[in-house]
Amino acid sequence: MPSPLDSLRVILVSTRNPLNIGAAARAMSNFGFSRLRVVNPYELAWREARSAVGAATLLAKAEEFPSVADAVADCTLVVGTTAAHHRELHQPLRPLQEAARLIRRHLGSGKVALLFGSEKRGLSNEDLSHCHWLTRIPTREEHGSMNIGQAVAVCLYELSRGSGSGKSSSKAVLAPAAEIERITQLLLEILPACGYLKPAARPATHEKIRRLIRRLNIPAEDAEIWMGIARQILWKIHNPQR
Amino acid sequence: MPSPLDSLRVILVSTRNPLNIGAAARAMSNFGFSRLRVVNPYELAWREARSAVGAATLLAKAEEFPSVADAVADCTLVVGTTAAHHRELHQPLRPLQEAARLIRRHLGSGKVALLFGSEKRGLSNEDLSHCHWLTRIPTREEHGSMNIGQAVAVCLYELSRGSGSGKSSSKAVLAPAAEIERITQLLLEILPACGYLKPAARPATHEKIRRLIRRLNIPAEDAEIWMGIARQILWKIHNPQR
Repeated sequence: MPSPLDSLRVILVSTRNPLNIGAAARAMSNFGFSRLRVVNPYELAWREARSAVGAATLLAKAEEFPSVADAVADCTLVVGTTAAHHRELHQPLRPLQEAARLIRRHLGSGKVALLFGSEKRGLSNEDLSHCHWLTRIPTREEHGSMNIGQAVAVCLYELSRGSGSGKSSSKAVLAPAAEIERITQLLLEILPACGYLKPAARPATHEKIRRLIRRLNIPAEDAEIWMGIARQILWKIHNPQR
Repeated sequence: MPSPLDSLRVILVSTRNPLNIGAAARAMSNFGFSRLRVVNPYELAWREARSAVGAATLLAKAEEFPSVADAVADCTLVVGTTAAHHRELHQPLRPLQEAARLIRRHLGSGKVALLFGSEKRGLSNEDLSHCHWLTRIPTREEHGSMNIGQAVAVCLYELSRGSGSGKSSSKAVLAPAAEIERITQLLLEILPACGYLKPAARPATHEKIRRLIRRLNIPAEDAEIWMGIARQILWKIHNPQR
């Protein structure tokens, strides 16, 4: 069954480094995207990337285009990525989170192009002029420009958010109070037996120990083990010879 | 003014490729994190990474440790990353989004270690046994394993999300890992001495005990008390007459 994620075209424009093309492909595979397009890549980089170990089908199926116009031709929404700190922008700029929401919505009905520029210069003004709007990963102003492979990974992570089941792990189930109290009672036998508490400790001391144990938040799955350990310690203190 | 993000320690364990160390450092700089630690890196990789163009201050300030235990010693929350599809896990696994929320909350009050394993094997079971819990980036089941530099970028992106507010919660401050490890070592002396474990228990058993203790989330205020109790029990087992 085709996934809506198949409607995304990740488009690398004038990428120079084969490692970056490979890294983009790997992130796509990690997050369930399959359609890579390259525009005017450095010939050598492109050849190296395709021959890299493990590059496999995604790169083999990648399409090459001579221009951005050609690469986005069949897409109904074109989005450019930019570091955007030192450039005057002529299009709306949306933070990645909002951009991802809009793109996801669009993927059900049409193809979306997501453009990444070259390592040195990013997307040119000409490239950007093909975009409906732009998006930016919220990086620090002092160091905004990301590595391409990492930028692709972050964008696709945000885009794939909430697409799967992604069931959240529930918090650890805590042991019921009765078991915690049994552990407490064992500790209250151990402590005077090993000389940590006086034999006739006052109720206030017992309460301190009780609170001490409760602050541990012992998980249900572990209560039995801790009881076993406490019993064994107590047994040894009472039977030092064995 | 120090940012709560300064309380995060990004820890790379046994990383082989200098490009990955460099990429992790770049992502850290992009998202406003500054404290990098490496455990037992391949010597050559480490040297190359530090001498890379543009590596600059973040890598120069990075700290090197001989073991995971040393690298996390001053942290009160230790979180491991894992691809987790083909491994039986012994700790709670939280999806990144939930993990980031918990880590952010913690950063206001204590240091958090975020561990990334080696390219080939990820984190070992021994490495994982130092962690309070684990997190996973929600990748595809068929291709779960991410490039380290990209995984670091995605994690830090998620962590820096909404960092502007960063209000600290009033939750209990947890004991630093060094103290937890001291308590663990005491228990690892007590258990064979009282006959709960065989004298020559296997590493896997030690790892189980290490995880058992970490699941308790011992508060900082109580660590001293638990150490005192453990020492007293050990003393009594060795000195039954007194």
